[in-house]
Amino acid sequence: MRFVSFRHGGRARYGVVKDGGVIDATDRLADRFTSLRDVIEGEALSELAPMADHGAPDVGLGEIEYLFPVTAPRKIFCIGRNYRAYHEVLEDGGAPEYPSVFPRYLNGFVPNGGVILKPRASDQLDYENEIGVVIGKRTRHVGEEDALACVAGFTIVNEGSVRDWQTKGTQNCPGKNFYRSGSIGPWMATPDHLPDLDNVRIVTRRNGEVVQDGTSDMMICKIPFLISHISKFTELEPGDLIATGSPGGSIIEGGEPKNWLKAGDELEFEIEGIGVLQNTVADE
Amino acid sequence: MRFVSFRHGGRARYGVVKDGGVIDATDRLADRFTSLRDVIEGEALSELAPMADHGAPDVGLGEIEYLFPVTAPRKIFCIGRNYRAYHEVLEDGGAPEYPSVFPRYLNGFVPNGGVILKPRASDQLDYENEIGVVIGKRTRHVGEEDALACVAGFTIVNEGSVRDWQTKGTQNCPGKNFYRSGSIGPWMATPDHLPDLDNVRIVTRRNGEVVQDGTSDMMICKIPFLISHISKFTELEPGDLIATGSPGGSIIEGGEPKNWLKAGDELEFEIEGIGVLQNTVADE
Repeated sequence: MRFVSFRHGGRARYGVVKDGGVIDATDRLADRFTSLRDVIEGEALSELAPMADHGAPDVGLGEIEYLFPVTAPRKIFCIGRNYRAYHEVLEDGGAPEYPSVFPRYLNGFVPNGGVILKPRASDQLDYENEIGVVIGKRTRHVGEEDALACVAGFTIVNEGSVRDWQTKGTQNCPGKNFYRSGSIGPWMATPDHLPDLDNVRIVTRRNGEVVQDGTSDMMICKIPFLISHISKFTELEPGDLIATGSPGGSIIEGGEPKNWLKAGDELEFEIEGIGVLQNTVADE
Repeated sequence: MRFVSFRHGGRARYGVVKDGGVIDATDRLADRFTSLRDVIEGEALSELAPMADHGAPDVGLGEIEYLFPVTAPRKIFCIGRNYRAYHEVLEDGGAPEYPSVFPRYLNGFVPNGGVILKPRASDQLDYENEIGVVIGKRTRHVGEEDALACVAGFTIVNEGSVRDWQTKGTQNCPGKNFYRSGSIGPWMATPDHLPDLDNVRIVTRRNGEVVQDGTSDMMICKIPFLISHISKFTELEPGDLIATGSPGGSIIEGGEPKNWLKAGDELEFEIEGIGVLQNTVADE
């Protein structure tokens, strides 16, 4: 199933994607849950299966305003330098001993259809297409072998970055937390849509041209390891998001002069089994 | 005024600290606000002044369970290596061009009176006593000259850190986001309690012994600069917190063998004009 959060008729809603539309689950579960995060936390996603199997769309995808799949994740962790291609271009080719983990706040993103902002403070806006892991259960000190049981689903994260601000100070936080510099969406796909996590195709198009085209077999620290590693220092909670790193093809890896993102650019972030996250770029 | 969020009679409440007790504002403003963050966001803190001037405590401080001063801040930014003493010990003595900014999630902290956890995954738990700035208004692209007008008040942040995990990966996030490794509280003091931000005394006691004793005149990047800098990459929102860095005296700066925090330690983080944040340490 694919679950989408959206606004329609002036209200925040959520439901199941089917046949180019959404089966609206908001009112059907209103006595127990008010958001998709609540449903995940209540471990009730599977209750929506009959609706997905037999229901008909209440509203077309073209008529909704997309929200973040989980509208209010408590935590977002991103993984840097986690694909071999990236290391081959920018680094010494060796894999790091530990993944680079860093937090991002939600206001650094826009949902599907939202406008990414080329910031006033920099010209170096870049994209990074990444598999996003949505956590389904409270998770602490989980082993790799049990980690995938804690996953509710997957979404697409454009972990948009402002390159020159990643090196202002010792931490990458400023360049990784620019207001509306990335995107998340369009929805969350349950794990059955990604049966082989080590071979998921990730394609990014800029104004129709393919600029990233890789598969997750190049991922250095795999998803079970990432969940296990993070769960050693913090408690992962339902709706938390882990962006797992991007394959090669970001602008920073290209030649000079770099063709940074600019107003008017149309971006498509496609991940096999999930879908396509679409955004445009505008000046702040 | 000093504003505290607390639990009493099974409910989350907030009010004004006075004469060893709290004047409970929760019910008086219930038609408009449900939390101190709401009051800050509604720019209504000053409405509580008559209550603070003429009211009598509804409950003694000894009877409440402290909550975080702002119970649900949307964002917490911390500043690393921002005191000269720290640089003199660990660095080359030079001031950095930019502050090191990094995010922390709320579950890395406990409130006043809460138990800090010595993690299972490490023995290197350390303390850092820091002035915490609570943002009062939506703030973006603010100049240093206008930055202090965006401040609602100040609190105390023990930016507790797990040292060996700060260097696992290229970012300090794991060591700075350990579950319940730091603390925030006991309350928020309005800016009139800190009339000279460049000369605020910061004292930490461990089991009664003074281990940190500095003043904010050693701060490298001052509070107006920090607010201005952060506002260039993101929007600061009411209730957001900035922990401004710690003076010398953290355990990592001491000699060998290092006497890391351990179960049973009693900690007091005092900041002049704000108060004292008290915590104990226990094994996870």
